[in-house]
Amino acid sequence: MALPRLLVWNEYRHELQNPEVSAVYPDGIHEAIADPLRQRGFPVTTATLDQPEHGLTDEVLNGADVLLWWGHKAHEDVSDAVVERVRRHVMGGLGLIVLHSGHYSKIFRRLLGTTASLKWRNARERELIWTVAPGHPIAEGIPNPVIIPEQEMYGEFFDIPTPDELIFISSFAGGEVFRGGVTYRRGLGKLFYFSPGDQEYPVYHHPDIRRILRNGVRWAAPSGPRLELTADPHPTGWFE
Amino acid sequence: MALPRLLVWNEYRHELQNPEVSAVYPDGIHEAIADPLRQRGFPVTTATLDQPEHGLTDEVLNGADVLLWWGHKAHEDVSDAVVERVRRHVMGGLGLIVLHSGHYSKIFRRLLGTTASLKWRNARERELIWTVAPGHPIAEGIPNPVIIPEQEMYGEFFDIPTPDELIFISSFAGGEVFRGGVTYRRGLGKLFYFSPGDQEYPVYHHPDIRRILRNGVRWAAPSGPRLELTADPHPTGWFE
Amino acid sequence: MALPRLLVWNEYRHELQNPEVSAVYPDGIHEAIADPLRQRGFPVTTATLDQPEHGLTDEVLNGADVLLWWGHKAHEDVSDAVVERVRRHVMGGLGLIVLHSGHYSKIFRRLLGTTASLKWRNARERELIWTVAPGHPIAEGIPNPVIIPEQEMYGEFFDIPTPDELIFISSFAGGEVFRGGVTYRRGLGKLFYFSPGDQEYPVYHHPDIRRILRNGVRWAAPSGPRLELTADPHPTGWFE
Amino acid sequence: MALPRLLVWNEYRHELQNPEVSAVYPDGIHEAIADPLRQRGFPVTTATLDQPEHGLTDEVLNGADVLLWWGHKAHEDVSDAVVERVRRHVMGGLGLIVLHSGHYSKIFRRLLGTTASLKWRNARERELIWTVAPGHPIAEGIPNPVIIPEQEMYGEFFDIPTPDELIFISSFAGGEVFRGGVTYRRGLGKLFYFSPGDQEYPVYHHPDIRRILRNGVRWAAPSGPRLELTADPHPTGWFE
Repeated sequence: MALPRLLVWNEYRHELQNPEVSAVYPDGIHEAIADPLRQRGFPVTTATLDQPEHGLTDEVLNGADVLLWWGHKAHEDVSDAVVERVRRHVMGGLGLIVLHSGHYSKIFRRLLGTTASLKWRNARERELIWTVAPGHPIAEGIPNPVIIPEQEMYGEFFDIPTPDELIFISSFAGGEVFRGGVTYRRGLGKLFYFSPGDQEYPVYHHPDIRRILRNGVRWAAPSGPRLELTADPHPTGWFE
Repeated sequence: MALPRLLVWNEYRHELQNPEVSAVYPDGIHEAIADPLRQRGFPVTTATLDQPEHGLTDEVLNGADVLLWWGHKAHEDVSDAVVERVRRHVMGGLGLIVLHSGHYSKIFRRLLGTTASLKWRNARERELIWTVAPGHPIAEGIPNPVIIPEQEMYGEFFDIPTPDELIFISSFAGGEVFRGGVTYRRGLGKLFYFSPGDQEYPVYHHPDIRRILRNGVRWAAPSGPRLELTADPHPTGWFE
Repeated sequence: MALPRLLVWNEYRHELQNPEVSAVYPDGIHEAIADPLRQRGFPVTTATLDQPEHGLTDEVLNGADVLLWWGHKAHEDVSDAVVERVRRHVMGGLGLIVLHSGHYSKIFRRLLGTTASLKWRNARERELIWTVAPGHPIAEGIPNPVIIPEQEMYGEFFDIPTPDELIFISSFAGGEVFRGGVTYRRGLGKLFYFSPGDQEYPVYHHPDIRRILRNGVRWAAPSGPRLELTADPHPTGWFE
Repeated sequence: MALPRLLVWNEYRHELQNPEVSAVYPDGIHEAIADPLRQRGFPVTTATLDQPEHGLTDEVLNGADVLLWWGHKAHEDVSDAVVERVRRHVMGGLGLIVLHSGHYSKIFRRLLGTTASLKWRNARERELIWTVAPGHPIAEGIPNPVIIPEQEMYGEFFDIPTPDELIFISSFAGGEVFRGGVTYRRGLGKLFYFSPGDQEYPVYHHPDIRRILRNGVRWAAPSGPRLELTADPHPTGWFE
């Protein structure tokens, strides 16, 4: 089975505006995510917010099996038309991995229907990531717990729908917990939200985090051909 | 425990425009739903599409514990602002029961994130409603199966997220099946979708359907005080 | 709606053998659980391991709507016949609340099918109980988090089936997390496992824990009449 | 990724005792299941009830990644010790596919904790299998619906725990519905129950059924190394 074709999308503003972030991610967070996946043989392209159409044309989306999404401070700058386009592709089978502060992205909230609000505190705290679904392919080869020495805290209540699968729960030094690895199905598409990863911390350089992303893209890849949603709401069933 | 306060919302156009529908529901579908609940002691009010703000002001919504929603051919006439208002109330704890063709309503699709598309055929077919969660309060006292002599067919694939609870599965004379009784949580709110019920058939006069609605509103009522969502996305957690 | 009739079952050996435990629970853990429920008006009886048939005859079980189960070091002394009897009643609708070290009880493991193994450490650690299903009736009125100053640690991986509902997640001072409040349905019966509570700590005197138990028994009570499972495996369906 | 090693277990008594069954399955149901999988390149072995230890020694079980189980009238002849052995292997990661009347097998009921009772009628009825999770790998390439011209009816209420994933729902000519394709996790093991398939009907010769089994064994195969459960209940966590 061929490896899925990946598309890493990044807001890509912190890195250009903040020297502390560019020190951690000199080529942008998208490259920090893309590069280790490329080294494992995945075909990977990238796209960023300030490209025309945010780099997410139908052609680009059709060329990917799984889209990884990193955004933080510019969610409102993503056009509704592109969000709707991405949503259509996900409904038709495009895998989607939403990372960290992407919980507040338009596409995540639009697909889930909730506010996705959470508690947070940026205080260089230790995060421990515990596996609660050890047989799941996304957890394959992951130690229990994964230790992230310094992180931003994300805590409950995390306003998401009941996950289809709860894979990882994090704890933080301050005592909070967070459902940081969860999956959903929407239409034909598989969605994995994974919370670790911040612009200020070298989380995406962590080997266990890289392995989780590697496992995640394999899991999220469509099992069969993608479908095209031609109208929404469609006058009758479209998965026929 | 006091009975929950109910608000029945109806598009209320078929009944005014189509003599065949008004023959089945002379006072409107909303009254056919509201009246048997009133007779059981529930405080019930109604609202309809063509009232100002569709009858769904903040004040009206604050006065209800559970909102029942019936719409069919005029989903697009419901204003986005009112849909967003209803959504905020659901997130804060308002119970919501979406009926039949309400699967295509803006509020249902907005809360679920999917297209909610399905197969359908209007051919006066027998529907059998099978209980698959017999201990659930919504199924209390319901025969297995409930028999609806004539109905519109709704069939799979029904493009909804994995339900939190699957309570009823229908079969139709043509052989289709349908997940017609499902629940979800969104924020603090409980959501029950129940498919039987069409403007052409006297489904809401059926005693078992009435009992399911009675069970449903009790289940969907909030367990505690409602919260108010002041901004969405909120800068930090709002359930604190 | 009348309050459900409760039956609190306790192994009741620590309290008789260990002065440190009897200092915390002088009348037995069962009375520490039963008494505040009685004060709220619930009809409550108790039963203990060393009574004939462990105090769990068919007659006693028929007289209860919800059974609360506390056991720790004598799980193997519970007879298989009684476990099977309790299981039959749960399948027929008896609510079951399994507490703390009851995760290793025969009845819990028999109903779930897994080992229910977990990590533990007894080191007087702070436990924080976070609500992740704030609209659920079991979470009604519960602060987020509940703070237990000293507790035994229970940690993941907790080998349980995917819960039907995940309501509470605990963190411990040592950094572990635990799915400590989970629900399941088995047959017509509702099952709530709640981890806090140990013979060495005054956890059952904590007002928030008492409220969770109060909410839990209301939730677990059967919605309708109980059924009797006459043979298992039954030659054909028994919920008809 | 190498194809998983499969072990097909069959009661293998109908075929030896009943000419009508041996006419449909001359080499046994196990060979009807095994042969098309072998032709697709899977390494497949078989085992049957009347072999020593039912052909299910630790060595044989260690040599398989996925076990397929077909049994019907001799469930009680399977020794408890072998059932417990299989259960230990499943907890440690062995995939398990339980077929048709295997719903009443000791291993299935032991892993689920319920009676697994259902309604049935043997009347050569048409079964339609509808996909309700079209993006799931087990549904890949499967038409909607699959048509089985003649089958034994299995109907709700099917007394199983809430499935982790509901993939297929069947309807029958008599109007019944059945959750006939469901998945569970138990420990590290993945479990798929699939109802179609009876000794009197050539269901396992049907190309869509074969494809579902092919998809199923791929899905159920362990993602990583198997673990060994050395004691149950284990004094502390065993997934560490």
